[in-house]
Amino acid sequence: MKKVILTGDRPTGKLHLGHYVGSLLNRVLLQDTYTQFVMIADVQALTDNFEHPQKIIENVYEVARDYLSVGLDPQKTTFFIQSQIPEITELTLYYLNLVTLGRLERNPTVKTEIHQKKYEDSIPAGFFCYPVNQAADITIFKADLVPVGQDQVPMIEQTNEIVRKFNRIYDTTCLKEAKVLLGDTSRLVGIDGKSKASKSLGNALFLSDTPEEIKHKVFAMFTDPMHIRLSDPGHVEGNVVFTYLDAFYKDKEELAALKAHYERGGLGDTTLKNLLNETLQNLLAPFREKRESFQTKDLKEILFSGTTQARKVAQETMREVREAIGLNYF
Amino acid sequence: MKKVILTGDRPTGKLHLGHYVGSLLNRVLLQDTYTQFVMIADVQALTDNFEHPQKIIENVYEVARDYLSVGLDPQKTTFFIQSQIPEITELTLYYLNLVTLGRLERNPTVKTEIHQKKYEDSIPAGFFCYPVNQAADITIFKADLVPVGQDQVPMIEQTNEIVRKFNRIYDTTCLKEAKVLLGDTSRLVGIDGKSKASKSLGNALFLSDTPEEIKHKVFAMFTDPMHIRLSDPGHVEGNVVFTYLDAFYKDKEELAALKAHYERGGLGDTTLKNLLNETLQNLLAPFREKRESFQTKDLKEILFSGTTQARKVAQETMREVREAIGLNYF
Repeated sequence: MKKVILTGDRPTGKLHLGHYVGSLLNRVLLQDTYTQFVMIADVQALTDNFEHPQKIIENVYEVARDYLSVGLDPQKTTFFIQSQIPEITELTLYYLNLVTLGRLERNPTVKTEIHQKKYEDSIPAGFFCYPVNQAADITIFKADLVPVGQDQVPMIEQTNEIVRKFNRIYDTTCLKEAKVLLGDTSRLVGIDGKSKASKSLGNALFLSDTPEEIKHKVFAMFTDPMHIRLSDPGHVEGNVVFTYLDAFYKDKEELAALKAHYERGGLGDTTLKNLLNETLQNLLAPFREKRESFQTKDLKEILFSGTTQARKVAQETMREVREAIGLNYF
Repeated sequence: MKKVILTGDRPTGKLHLGHYVGSLLNRVLLQDTYTQFVMIADVQALTDNFEHPQKIIENVYEVARDYLSVGLDPQKTTFFIQSQIPEITELTLYYLNLVTLGRLERNPTVKTEIHQKKYEDSIPAGFFCYPVNQAADITIFKADLVPVGQDQVPMIEQTNEIVRKFNRIYDTTCLKEAKVLLGDTSRLVGIDGKSKASKSLGNALFLSDTPEEIKHKVFAMFTDPMHIRLSDPGHVEGNVVFTYLDAFYKDKEELAALKAHYERGGLGDTTLKNLLNETLQNLLAPFREKRESFQTKDLKEILFSGTTQARKVAQETMREVREAIGLNYF
């Protein structure tokens, strides 16, 4: 039997090239050998966006469109919307009994996020508890593998603690521990080179950008402020154009030669930017074509069918969970 | 339209005479004029009994039997089992976003309970969050009134805070604030006179006790240790027999005369205990008859039908809630 992978995204914005190299490309490869569930985590996104649900809801379809554009195939990958599988909330509530407040407070991922978000004394309980909701997502689909970055490893550890505790207390084997599939999810920097690409900073190249937008952003990329005349020796380190070429230019030998040329002088930014633009246009053109081949109606159908399929799996796990606890009265 | 009442019990033990005077009698009266939902709160009971689910599950049917025995009528009152309405967990999760950890910590009812249970550093997150689950119970049925004791008033205040916040943020009127129906839920003392009647202390008179058990417990009741000879003046204060007569003996004038006689001496404990025994046997005999008229099969049917009916109401509220947030994709 194929192993199960669960992965997904919070629909807080359109996906960009950082997502593509960090996770989407990997998912496209994994879908051939695994039973892959991809969750659009609207419930989780609401934990820190509950005052602006419209932002989340609009992006559910955008994210689905991005998935399809890069080649995630609804015949191979099951897409679903988290909020439409209420069984996950049910499992979350039973899991909350098995986790102490102290343990949640010590979760390093959440600790960092709480600090970043400057919640101070007003941490929403839903946000604080989201690792438990995540444990429910993973285990309700009996995922064998969860592709995550290093910073998310504590989440999977906490999930597995819950699984062991549940199976021990209720004397069952119905829940499964998940393994981390460690990926390089260090996101691409933005075109300013200062911070990670993100929608809110306006410094990301989106999968849905037009050719003109891509070109404009490539030509606005931060390079090397000391590289003024063509003959000046240039710096590769911190040069955003090279960061993107590293991520997307296939011929690594030629790229090494370009770097050497740039460092000794005589290679202009415009030449490099044209090369990067061409590379990205070639990557994105087929994505764009695919994107346009789906109507909103098709998206709706794909999400509905995936969600229906995923819900069946979730319902079956919840049946087992209820039976293990003893909550099968009727 | 009839106003809606939501009430219920955690199925942690069989119900006793304390429950009868404190709440059941009142519910029997209310069922004629209100749309009454009575919840057997197994999910809530699990928050502090998650390691012993069997204790909760066994008592679900016991509690239902107790309800029917005192005259709660399935034609007038809708009984349901909380865990069988998963929509409540869904609503709980959305409510958790609207409540801060600090607000939950300040809930006086929970504060007291955490102290009593000696959780110290290992408070289960489920227990900590149970007021939010309770808010979901109340509001999913759009309850107008919730009969509670003074100690539970902060719970209803917190519920209404959530309702106002939800309605404001999601620009809706789909949730309703509930009013407290303050009742005298000061529970009867146990037969030892030292503490409240409870199953774990073995000092309670259960609705399901046999006539022999009732008689035995009445005759074991603490009276007045200074009242040795019949002619000795006795004390009424702290005398458990009088506490129970106060609660159950209908002729208050005669009871006042008995108290006066006891205080001046010449009235024996045995006479009083016989009177109390007779009073309680008269109260409980029809309950016992009714109890025996229901087979487990009948109970199951009543709970199934009530739960099905209640779930329809909960599903309709959740449909409105999802629509208000915007989570109606399909």
